[in-house]
Amino acid sequence: MSSATKATILLAHGSTDPNWLAPFCTLYEGIRQHTGEQRVELAYMELAEPSLQNMIEQLATEGFTEIDILPLFFAAGRHLRKDVPRQLEDIQQAATVPLTLTLHQPVGLEPEIAEAISRLVIRRVT
Amino acid sequence: MSSATKATILLAHGSTDPNWLAPFCTLYEGIRQHTGEQRVELAYMELAEPSLQNMIEQLATEGFTEIDILPLFFAAGRHLRKDVPRQLEDIQQAATVPLTLTLHQPVGLEPEIAEAISRLVIRRVT
Repeated sequence: MSSATKATILLAHGSTDPNWLAPFCTLYEGIRQHTGEQRVELAYMELAEPSLQNMIEQLATEGFTEIDILPLFFAAGRHLRKDVPRQLEDIQQAATVPLTLTLHQPVGLEPEIAEAISRLVIRRVT
Repeated sequence: MSSATKATILLAHGSTDPNWLAPFCTLYEGIRQHTGEQRVELAYMELAEPSLQNMIEQLATEGFTEIDILPLFFAAGRHLRKDVPRQLEDIQQAATVPLTLTLHQPVGLEPEIAEAISRLVIRRVT
């Protein structure tokens, strides 16, 4: 279901190392082929561009007011529990239009991802 | 197939935040239930214990001389391309018995994990 005001940002940690960034770009390109008209972007928390803030501001400028943020992280530590929520609060307060920014739990905490990793490790080990 | 001299270390980045560490412990406990007598341990690259170095030294003391290191990372950046290989070299050189330490590619680069993440994201977005 495509929505004209709703967008999703895949949020990766970020790194200065292009070797670290490349697999996220590949993953993102693959995903984009299956999401049709629904707007999906990739952004980084730190050390790489586009930053989360720049991406939200760009989407807001284009009229997207409801933005889901889906972290490509294994777990939620200080970054996702404190830094990012604080950043989202600041962006929301500074925005000239009302924005609904929803930070979801990291993909690594989804049972299907944890199970896929478990299966892989068990196969490797045994 | 269980081997008396072979062990596997699941390597996570590490964090000072117990909320970040917890899902790795849960994942590890789940894996342990399916690996029988094969020795599998969890260790951290930094900021948490057991460290990779301490874990390798412990396993070596117990007679494990062939140790596979399987990174629970999404991608290989500076840490897995430089820091960890250098650390493994140092450990190998300092060891009193010959150790075979093999650093595998991060689980996030395995097609089945990337596909599981893609499926999850596509389902969420569309």
